[in-house]
Amino acid sequence: MAKRLSPFETSEEESIDYNKLIKEFGTQPISTVKNIPKGIKAFDDGYIFSHRDFDKFMKDVKSKKDVAILTGFNASGSIHLGHKLTFDVVVELQKKYNIPVYIPISDDESYIFEKIDNQEVGMKNARLIAAQMVALGFDMKRTKIFIHQEYTDIYNFVIKLSKKVTLSTIKAIYGFNDSTSAGKMFYPVIQAADILLPQLDKFGGKKSVLVPVGIDQDPHVRLSRDLAAKFGLNKPATIHMKYLSSLRGGPKMSKSLPGSAIFLNEDPKKAAKFCMQALTGGRDTVEEQKKKGGEADKCVVYHYLKVFFEDKKESTKRHKNCYGGKLLCGECKKCLAKDVEIYLKDFQSKVKKAEKNIDKYLIK
Amino acid sequence: MAKRLSPFETSEEESIDYNKLIKEFGTQPISTVKNIPKGIKAFDDGYIFSHRDFDKFMKDVKSKKDVAILTGFNASGSIHLGHKLTFDVVVELQKKYNIPVYIPISDDESYIFEKIDNQEVGMKNARLIAAQMVALGFDMKRTKIFIHQEYTDIYNFVIKLSKKVTLSTIKAIYGFNDSTSAGKMFYPVIQAADILLPQLDKFGGKKSVLVPVGIDQDPHVRLSRDLAAKFGLNKPATIHMKYLSSLRGGPKMSKSLPGSAIFLNEDPKKAAKFCMQALTGGRDTVEEQKKKGGEADKCVVYHYLKVFFEDKKESTKRHKNCYGGKLLCGECKKCLAKDVEIYLKDFQSKVKKAEKNIDKYLIK
Repeated sequence: MAKRLSPFETSEEESIDYNKLIKEFGTQPISTVKNIPKGIKAFDDGYIFSHRDFDKFMKDVKSKKDVAILTGFNASGSIHLGHKLTFDVVVELQKKYNIPVYIPISDDESYIFEKIDNQEVGMKNARLIAAQMVALGFDMKRTKIFIHQEYTDIYNFVIKLSKKVTLSTIKAIYGFNDSTSAGKMFYPVIQAADILLPQLDKFGGKKSVLVPVGIDQDPHVRLSRDLAAKFGLNKPATIHMKYLSSLRGGPKMSKSLPGSAIFLNEDPKKAAKFCMQALTGGRDTVEEQKKKGGEADKCVVYHYLKVFFEDKKESTKRHKNCYGGKLLCGECKKCLAKDVEIYLKDFQSKVKKAEKNIDKYLIK
Repeated sequence: MAKRLSPFETSEEESIDYNKLIKEFGTQPISTVKNIPKGIKAFDDGYIFSHRDFDKFMKDVKSKKDVAILTGFNASGSIHLGHKLTFDVVVELQKKYNIPVYIPISDDESYIFEKIDNQEVGMKNARLIAAQMVALGFDMKRTKIFIHQEYTDIYNFVIKLSKKVTLSTIKAIYGFNDSTSAGKMFYPVIQAADILLPQLDKFGGKKSVLVPVGIDQDPHVRLSRDLAAKFGLNKPATIHMKYLSSLRGGPKMSKSLPGSAIFLNEDPKKAAKFCMQALTGGRDTVEEQKKKGGEADKCVVYHYLKVFFEDKKESTKRHKNCYGGKLLCGECKKCLAKDVEIYLKDFQSKVKKAEKNIDKYLIK
């Protein structure tokens, strides 16, 4: 499989070496887990590459122990399709095993790390994200969403944890120095409080918790695991998702690169247009494509369809037809554009509905 | 005036050099203030020695500008007579000029700095202290008390301030290093949030704020003044109280030294007993005392009576009779014991009453 344009690559120029990441972060390859859940797309299709204690978490799930999943988000703005990938795993796991889910929205993080200009924007974004979580299909009877700026009770737990982390530990994990702001330096403790929160007495006490993240967020999990040991809590488990490429190829999905990401609050028609501009694995000319076939493995459009909109059968057929020269890129792009447009319209109407009574879903 | 046993000395062995403290902390002697309020005991009797911008604050008071006083307390336990001295100044200033008062109770500080074992004790102590504040005579129509563990909204302001303080600034002010816990390192920002809180929009916006403290707490005021400038708020003013000696002489008032301090939740009879054991300025024998007279200036009992229970006339008379050999130490001790016992009985009944409906006085 060609790597340059795969949806899970970090850049157009370089492939992500997931084995190297596993070594670097000191985690385990997902292949070491014998009890991987079946029928969950991200596992079935290999979008998860690494873990800590996931086998132990699944054992607890299967033996009906008290478990929970935690999946947070900072309040820099709407989620995009790349984020949806992680949330979908959680939605599927929740559905399959009736697992309670905790979703902290860290507007303080967005503010401290200058992703937003002020706390008012943080609050506005956080409420949008909360509504997007509802629209993603979480079972709201088993899901607790909390926004730091509103659920300030979290800071009492932060204070508790903050006694047992030294500056040197935080500096070592995060590479901070003395010119770092007090806020940035302290933020990892807030993040750890989020991760360990489901184990507080008020939420039913000590339990087995899974925290799916990008591996770049693993330092937070590490710090939380250290702190869990110090406070007699269970060390949270984690799974690490592969990276989804931008629609234009490369890793960067950002508002500052229009068309690189499909933000879930984007105008559906505009999003469809972005899809029509996406990078494919097509040949230089129609003739060449018909003759040599396209390169689905290098095609972002093919991968987006596979990840988000098609089942295995459809995807395999598309793959075959592409390589066989029976499909032109325009057709695939139209499919993706149509699927994205339909999805966004439906999703946004769900968000709108959820926004109307979002307060009933928020812990305050 | 002899210094060794004066109620405002820091130790039995050494005198406090208040001029040296003023130089060390870079503050101004209170003598530089021309508009000192009259009829307030601590000012009239010289218990305040230093300040920052107090002249400016008094100018704002006199010209009916928007002003407030902030006087906090950590939740390590009941207040004692030494603390009462500072609170009394605030009560008197509030009464004289109708000034709004803010009282943050920082249970997080007590916990982070290991003055208490857990947050539950912090909450219990904080509620006692809140009731003691009511009993001290604050005008509760103009007084807002808040406990950090309950008024966690304070942390949203802390987060805001934390962006504009670097680790190196905090290290320089407080002498912390990399083995310091994240909690201790972060605490100064929480303290600054307390001090600047009255200037938030929700409390009526920018105003002139006075923060009476012991000069050892001045670093907090300095950091707050720096942050005020960065956030377009007014720099808080401060006055520094002299130190009240322990009943046994020396500076240390602590539960671990029974009889060193009169905690305001002490059994009144036991407190009276402590008074009978207090250090005086008496001679070795009754004969010598009658002949040479006692040394009121060196006597803790004389000073406690003067500071807390007697007016100028009574105190002057006691001073004269002591030096004239007309008073024996036992008589003075009995007076103090009686006054303390009566005061504590009355105070504690007020506290009990306040505790019953303390929630109505707390911002949450």
